[in-house]
Amino acid sequence: MIRAALARGDGIVRETPLLSSPFLDDLAGRRVWVKAECLQHTGSFKFRGGWSAVSAMAPDARAKGVIAFSSGNHAQGVALAARMQGAPAVIVMPEDAPKIKIDNTRALGAEVVLYDRENESREDIGAMLARDRGLTLIKPYDEPLVIAGQGTCGIEIARQARAAGIDAADVLICCGGGGLTSGVALAVAADHPGLKVRPAEPTGFDDVARSLATGQIVNNNLKNGLWDAIVTQQPGDLTFPIMADKCGPGLVVTEEETKRAMALAFARLKIVVEPGGAVALAAALFHGDQMGGDDVIAVTTGGNVDPAFFAQVISEFGGV
Amino acid sequence: MIRAALARGDGIVRETPLLSSPFLDDLAGRRVWVKAECLQHTGSFKFRGGWSAVSAMAPDARAKGVIAFSSGNHAQGVALAARMQGAPAVIVMPEDAPKIKIDNTRALGAEVVLYDRENESREDIGAMLARDRGLTLIKPYDEPLVIAGQGTCGIEIARQARAAGIDAADVLICCGGGGLTSGVALAVAADHPGLKVRPAEPTGFDDVARSLATGQIVNNNLKNGLWDAIVTQQPGDLTFPIMADKCGPGLVVTEEETKRAMALAFARLKIVVEPGGAVALAAALFHGDQMGGDDVIAVTTGGNVDPAFFAQVISEFGGV
Repeated sequence: MIRAALARGDGIVRETPLLSSPFLDDLAGRRVWVKAECLQHTGSFKFRGGWSAVSAMAPDARAKGVIAFSSGNHAQGVALAARMQGAPAVIVMPEDAPKIKIDNTRALGAEVVLYDRENESREDIGAMLARDRGLTLIKPYDEPLVIAGQGTCGIEIARQARAAGIDAADVLICCGGGGLTSGVALAVAADHPGLKVRPAEPTGFDDVARSLATGQIVNNNLKNGLWDAIVTQQPGDLTFPIMADKCGPGLVVTEEETKRAMALAFARLKIVVEPGGAVALAAALFHGDQMGGDDVIAVTTGGNVDPAFFAQVISEFGGV
Repeated sequence: MIRAALARGDGIVRETPLLSSPFLDDLAGRRVWVKAECLQHTGSFKFRGGWSAVSAMAPDARAKGVIAFSSGNHAQGVALAARMQGAPAVIVMPEDAPKIKIDNTRALGAEVVLYDRENESREDIGAMLARDRGLTLIKPYDEPLVIAGQGTCGIEIARQARAAGIDAADVLICCGGGGLTSGVALAVAADHPGLKVRPAEPTGFDDVARSLATGQIVNNNLKNGLWDAIVTQQPGDLTFPIMADKCGPGLVVTEEETKRAMALAFARLKIVVEPGGAVALAAALFHGDQMGGDDVIAVTTGGNVDPAFFAQVISEFGGV
């Protein structure tokens, strides 16, 4: 399914570069490779899954359209993928979502339906819209076609790692529901078994690390905020068994380490990374004692960050 | 020479991506393609020329080392290219150059020799060092091997443009001495004649545009500052005849347009672009009346920008 998704996205989904800097290598004490998924269409890897799901639909279903629940990167990824394939898209977002995200999703051609987080159920609204209009729901991670789309990133990593002479390395991935993590884990297991995927999460939201450690799905109970893009209540029912089978132990990083990673990516790689997208790089740079080998690969999963917040981070940590 | 430089850099010089965003397309009224050279090693295209020059040297000359005059991107490009090929590098920099640039150049393994801009001649210092130690001077642009190295960017642009279905387009390039502009102009003339290179410069420093318009080399007389990375006194003796033969008319942009282009590159492409590297994108976005066709390609030449200044630009213009 991952190879089929890659073929469906050929010439459309961007092959993102594998970046590096001698300054980051010196800091980490090994070679650090950054798979810059923030450079993907719509600024995050989510476009891969969106494209995969929409492109696999039967023409008549596609003509009716798709629906997704998301206040963030999944919304934009699905909206653009749908528009490029002529499918109407409805995105159900909380009415208190940041205006810029609502505006961006609309500008990408989607119809945005707002709901009241306290008093309405997005599932009910979505189910009604889907039934009335014949829309197909695209889930953010617990959907095989989405996992397959995210997995195309892993095929690229395997190929780029070989080209860079990397025989063995941990592949650290910022992990929310586990769509990207499980998809990449499947892809590299097939294409470059020297690579081992490990999820990276922020302190307090390490549901995946704890679930992997205990062997069963456990919950986050905290409210998020900074980590909007990657925090979910728990790993997915489809993604968790894949991660349990294919992934190494999870890594957990602090908020300050994440901000430093954002500033270093700005200064040394010239890329814009959002907090949730910088967690894996932070693990590579500041938790090197938890990994072995001469190389580590970190996926920077997204770059959709508020300008004022980014300005604050690089002002504080950007001198490097 | 360009093809030979490409072969010498194979697997080393990064193939930078050609990025785009529907938001930029809407703003410009045509498809805008951004060749993100800020993602090159050391954060600018200058690594291409540095690698080309060092890799073409005879082994005994390379063992003695190289020397360059630069306070900016050329220094870092030459320093890293030399270190990766085992050549000692001496960089002659003004003693009032920003500390971060001096530190970066040293961290890349170069010996930095500082001079007093007012009372010393960098040429005299360089000539003395070169003679005493047998160092080879690598000029920033008026050097065929450097022009050939920068031209490798043009081979990539030609190939990527064909892959993206671009039959004809202006290729806008932030232009200082003209090394990149002339190299890319030669490359695309050979590989994709539908593309036409045009230099882009900031208001008040448009020596290339005025030289092309009058057919002879004219000077800038203003002091620079913001435009450090791309302002030179005048186009080069080698680069000007190539530009006069191959390039379309120059484009000139304001400081505010450039800052807006930096903020848009941040928000829509997730890349970090320095002021001098954003001039061509500013021309593509805000001077569309001076070009034709459905597509335009802009090269963002570098991303080495002070964090405080970048923070200020995205805070002011980053809401888009």
